[in-house]
Amino acid sequence: MKATILHAPRDIRVEEVDDPAIQRPTDALVRVTAACVCGSDLWPYRGINEVARPRRIGHEFVGIVEEVGTDVRSLRPGDFVIAPFLYSDNTCPHCQVGMQSACSNGGGWGGHDSEGFMVDGGQGEYVRVPLADGTLVSTREVPDEKQVPSLLALSDVMGTGWHAAVAAGVREGDTVAVVGDGAVGLCGVLAAAQMGGGRVIGMSRHESRQRLATSFGATDVVSERGEAGEAAVRDLTDGVGVDAVLECVGTGEAMQTAIAIARPGATVGYVGVPHGVELPVRDMFARNVGVAGGVAPVRAYLPRLRDDVLNGVISPGAVFDLEVPLAEAAEAYAAMDERRAIKTLIRP
Amino acid sequence: MKATILHAPRDIRVEEVDDPAIQRPTDALVRVTAACVCGSDLWPYRGINEVARPRRIGHEFVGIVEEVGTDVRSLRPGDFVIAPFLYSDNTCPHCQVGMQSACSNGGGWGGHDSEGFMVDGGQGEYVRVPLADGTLVSTREVPDEKQVPSLLALSDVMGTGWHAAVAAGVREGDTVAVVGDGAVGLCGVLAAAQMGGGRVIGMSRHESRQRLATSFGATDVVSERGEAGEAAVRDLTDGVGVDAVLECVGTGEAMQTAIAIARPGATVGYVGVPHGVELPVRDMFARNVGVAGGVAPVRAYLPRLRDDVLNGVISPGAVFDLEVPLAEAAEAYAAMDERRAIKTLIRP
Repeated sequence: MKATILHAPRDIRVEEVDDPAIQRPTDALVRVTAACVCGSDLWPYRGINEVARPRRIGHEFVGIVEEVGTDVRSLRPGDFVIAPFLYSDNTCPHCQVGMQSACSNGGGWGGHDSEGFMVDGGQGEYVRVPLADGTLVSTREVPDEKQVPSLLALSDVMGTGWHAAVAAGVREGDTVAVVGDGAVGLCGVLAAAQMGGGRVIGMSRHESRQRLATSFGATDVVSERGEAGEAAVRDLTDGVGVDAVLECVGTGEAMQTAIAIARPGATVGYVGVPHGVELPVRDMFARNVGVAGGVAPVRAYLPRLRDDVLNGVISPGAVFDLEVPLAEAAEAYAAMDERRAIKTLIRP
Repeated sequence: MKATILHAPRDIRVEEVDDPAIQRPTDALVRVTAACVCGSDLWPYRGINEVARPRRIGHEFVGIVEEVGTDVRSLRPGDFVIAPFLYSDNTCPHCQVGMQSACSNGGGWGGHDSEGFMVDGGQGEYVRVPLADGTLVSTREVPDEKQVPSLLALSDVMGTGWHAAVAAGVREGDTVAVVGDGAVGLCGVLAAAQMGGGRVIGMSRHESRQRLATSFGATDVVSERGEAGEAAVRDLTDGVGVDAVLECVGTGEAMQTAIAIARPGATVGYVGVPHGVELPVRDMFARNVGVAGGVAPVRAYLPRLRDDVLNGVISPGAVFDLEVPLAEAAEAYAAMDERRAIKTLIRP
């Protein structure tokens, strides 16, 4: 089969690799029908995270079950499934409290599992899915093609934006600010609006992203960054600050802004993988600003978000503004790297 | 009147100072009947926080209202009142959401208010209380002398321990660990037990404090510290970690332990004033461990906790294991500094 391989910074190739096969009775084999590139894929792509050797990449995909292992109970060939960006057994003590991203037996795509078997990356034609019953979430029927981008968005960005809002403790009527206008930040706006945020402030400098934020439920847009952005949010809130902040970037500057605009007692829900973030504990203590979040347990939110997509309540697939065939995966990365695209959908 | 003055590290004196008087119509004048020494008073006492010049000290007191300004509505002479460790108007946007420690017009004892008037420290015979309606919480009747230590404990340590448990999000049935066996940590045990913690693990090396923790509701005691303490808590929880952690010390080591023993998805509620704390954001992110807390909005919790004391539900006054007359305030400090006393009550 063909799969995407990161050879070195900015060197993405689609190459012929071994076809995956069921290795264990809890596996499923999935034919990928849509995959995509994540903002976090750009860290190694840009060389910010080291690329020691060529490796499979991609952790967001949906597809059709081709084959299941003998122990798989909840899935059968032909099912349409959404894969979260981590696999998990959904039964360990962490999964049981909704923290599937800390699953005792889980792991990530594009590496090796606990028994040393290769785990495929998501940007390829097929994926062997470990712990299939715990990992995959299926739809009752194969969905309409129009809904596929939104279901694909649930594999990471929508679940991650949702997690930011959960971690920030967004409540009905809250004034919420979202730092970051990438796909996750935009999904964070959607999540905050869905949770009843009375006022949702999107922070974005880019007109097309501002429009998307507004269509996702942002009531206000702040285009300034840094101290000017902080001042703008303070002005919007009569100097009080916001009730909840979603930090969806992961840089030190973004976190600084997030903490600065939080009102005393508020929580910053953060889902941007921290790069150069230092938490100002004395300031946080003085103002009772908490931080919570981390690697999103997307699996926990999938059933609800799947239903919301299928019922037309949310359409997070709008974050995809470019679509390429698998053979052009390199362009999928370049377009996001150069911010020509918010998020690229890849068709194997 | 006589009041306690910190002249320099370990130089505490009780001296004659000007009698306070009503300065503004929102003031009340309170005759202090019981005060105490706070763990945080030890930071300047030990010279860890700089002592630039002699200053009034003490921020925990109860007493009898002697006189009120013309705008004071909720209090009258003769009322028994509890003072939180900060004064606040209880009407600003921060107070309205229960964050009185961030009051736009509030401040602390033993300094100067926003208009430059001297604000008395709590360890003296009288205190001019600014914003008396917003600050003081009275009892219907002058309480029985037996209840005074418990009511005094509400001025800081019990409200602060309560805040740690609120910030940590303690829920019915949770396994909760409390780092720190000072008065605040012990009150944190009491708070966690009151909030329904199914298992409350007190971390304490001192037998007398272990006994008190148990009487406050600790179901388990871990006497090890540092890595050994972390391992002991992991063993107690089958390697999972605890659902909520109360960090009631403020040192880097205590925070490290608190974060290490938190299960993925848990929150560390911290109320120890941070000294040398660095938050390990990458580890927190990887395990979804949040931190929340800060300067406790004791005023928010006072009405409920007052009723709990008066109804015999809680008796946090048990943290006082030494009582001295005001003239011996220096001994009150020395006993706590040398850990001969958990907390010292001072009788003016």
